Amino acid sequence: MAKEGTEIAEETEQMIDQKEPDNPVSAAVDPKEMRAVVLTGFGGLNKLKVTKKPMPEPQRGEVKIRVKACGLNFLDLMVRQGNIDNPPKTPLVPGFECSGIVESVGENTKGFEIGDRVMAFVNYNAWAEVVCTPLDFVYKIPDDMTFSEAAAFSMNFVTAYMMLFEVANLREGMSVLVHSAGGAVGLAVAQLCSTVPNVTVFGTASPFKHEAIKHSVTHVFDRNIDYVPEVKKISPDGVDIVLDCLCGENTGKSLTLLKPMGTYILYGSSNMVTGETKSFFSFAKSWWQVEKVNPIKLYEENKVIAGFSLLNLLFKQGGCNQVKTAVQKLLSLYDQKKIKPVVDSLWALEEVKEAMQRIHDRGNIGKLILDVEKSPTPLSTKEDILKNID
Amino acid sequence: MAKEGTEIAEETEQMIDQKEPDNPVSAAVDPKEMRAVVLTGFGGLNKLKVTKKPMPEPQRGEVKIRVKACGLNFLDLMVRQGNIDNPPKTPLVPGFECSGIVESVGENTKGFEIGDRVMAFVNYNAWAEVVCTPLDFVYKIPDDMTFSEAAAFSMNFVTAYMMLFEVANLREGMSVLVHSAGGAVGLAVAQLCSTVPNVTVFGTASPFKHEAIKHSVTHVFDRNIDYVPEVKKISPDGVDIVLDCLCGENTGKSLTLLKPMGTYILYGSSNMVTGETKSFFSFAKSWWQVEKVNPIKLYEENKVIAGFSLLNLLFKQGGCNQVKTAVQKLLSLYDQKKIKPVVDSLWALEEVKEAMQRIHDRGNIGKLILDVEKSPTPLSTKEDILKNID
Repeated sequence: MAKEGTEIAEETEQMIDQKEPDNPVSAAVDPKEMRAVVLTGFGGLNKLKVTKKPMPEPQRGEVKIRVKACGLNFLDLMVRQGNIDNPPKTPLVPGFECSGIVESVGENTKGFEIGDRVMAFVNYNAWAEVVCTPLDFVYKIPDDMTFSEAAAFSMNFVTAYMMLFEVANLREGMSVLVHSAGGAVGLAVAQLCSTVPNVTVFGTASPFKHEAIKHSVTHVFDRNIDYVPEVKKISPDGVDIVLDCLCGENTGKSLTLLKPMGTYILYGSSNMVTGETKSFFSFAKSWWQVEKVNPIKLYEENKVIAGFSLLNLLFKQGGCNQVKTAVQKLLSLYDQKKIKPVVDSLWALEEVKEAMQRIHDRGNIGKLILDVEKSPTPLSTKEDILKNID
Repeated sequence: MAKEGTEIAEETEQMIDQKEPDNPVSAAVDPKEMRAVVLTGFGGLNKLKVTKKPMPEPQRGEVKIRVKACGLNFLDLMVRQGNIDNPPKTPLVPGFECSGIVESVGENTKGFEIGDRVMAFVNYNAWAEVVCTPLDFVYKIPDDMTFSEAAAFSMNFVTAYMMLFEVANLREGMSVLVHSAGGAVGLAVAQLCSTVPNVTVFGTASPFKHEAIKHSVTHVFDRNIDYVPEVKKISPDGVDIVLDCLCGENTGKSLTLLKPMGTYILYGSSNMVTGETKSFFSFAKSWWQVEKVNPIKLYEENKVIAGFSLLNLLFKQGGCNQVKTAVQKLLSLYDQKKIKPVVDSLWALEEVKEAMQRIHDRGNIGKLILDVEKSPTPLSTKEDILKNID
């Protein structure tokens, strides 16, 4: 991994658009341009570069945000590979969430003012210095929330919250199984579970993360072993809620683990990602490989099966009001100090490849953040950091 | 229907066990015997008769109930036809719920005393003068609840409650589609929906029931037309919750009608019953005919699909505590006069065939009750009644 990382780092030195030879952060600012990460085509890490783009301006109902931090999610890898349903055309600026300061507002944007500290969802285009997005997707953040925390907040906590409390109806005394328990959604799930009395959390994670997450996850298992017998040893009846971001064979295994009246929720398909570029037909293949469910079986077994995609809810299905309600409830929990986003690491825009590699290798504990104002770490320092990580 | 009904009535005159030629209700009582409805084999109405059976006595943890009233459900028709998964051996006494008075108790039945007015679930054997069942399935009833109401209460209201509030998480402003809106579950669903502000209920029912249910169901459609375009005319986005007791092609239609974050619950399969006796392989056929659901589709569409079988939860899956909690909440709603079971009609044990025919023909509005102390209606009166029904 260190070797691979070093290679990426060397490449990163080259990836800054050649039209802008200076250090991009200290460069003189042209008000009609901004820096952004651009995906030039679907594929490997080499499809990503940082370049100048025309400055966007807010349309009616939109706010313009001077971005401070962006969230990096596993889904961004799948987008890079084109491993999603109906991928958009490239080139594109990836990224679905960010935080920053409102720089200007379009018409009809009541409730927002220049200078507001906000976090926002964006339908692509988040990984840039400036973003415009409809106010339906923008939320003011508390004074004591850092921009990194805010960029780590919206996608993962809203996903965790809506799955646990709106789809699955988590209540006192229940049990929850979550994969990638050390990832940002996993940690959000564990924190939200701790707001309900007497909830048992089962989690799978790479062994090196166990120490870091054991305070919030009741029982942690190695992600490389079969978790089904391990869970059954502790809870022979199974669990009430399974949150599955893996897909594939996990669907059938999870249904087996569900108690009567239990709920299985599929919210990702990271098992589809095996290498740096997608395998041909991998999206279609997973569609056919996943076990289809007969409603009569659900009737006989008293089980619930669901899917949750926050981005589809927001951008395809008009669910912004439902999401806004969830955000308000989450911000209230944040104010009560019951939840707090865990940031794994901060990366400059120019370091997006290393960041992506880290999430691909499941090296992170918590959220990876692109810090727009950060300068790329010099190569020598980076080698030290990578040595320490390994 | 009148002709068929008359034929059944004549047959009923013969169906009382020939060993007991007197009017069964006024006959001298042998304390070692009781009357019960017996299903002699799977098939048509002619497989049902009323006969004497040995008096059951309570085992450890059981209470013995002098039955006053029994509930008749659509599921009892399916049992009669043998149209269920893993049917038990015949002869058997059908029936899953009753109300009555505790006559004696086994050991270890703390909390129950002789004379208690109760309602109970039974794993078969409810349609008899006396029933023994574990106290986990027995609930005391309020003083002002009649035995008929109690026998109409447990199965249908618990089913409606658990589907709406535990599987589907019904909240203010949501919409619900329920089929057989004039049946006992349908009416329970509508009453429970009215306990939540601003819930819209869509229902399907035979046209002659529309007048009777229009106060509790917001929009009623003829059960013989396609409800999908009718619902979409009123609510183009669809509905939040679909409760499906029909199965078959309704599963796919219902999923189409669901809003994002909506929940479809299959809780019965009355479409499997087409005639008096089951068609060969009809259970297996319906298993294959129902559309299987791909979890990835649920992920993309943000939808939830569930099944609910109260009897499996109670008798196969150890869910008696969950059910007890639901019963307590429902009895509290009854005390607050927010819900009240609707009884369609009372029938003597000897009239079980007419009662079954009535539910088969979907002639009922609310619950059919077998009233154990009722004498069969004389044939002449019955003809008048049947004429009036038509």
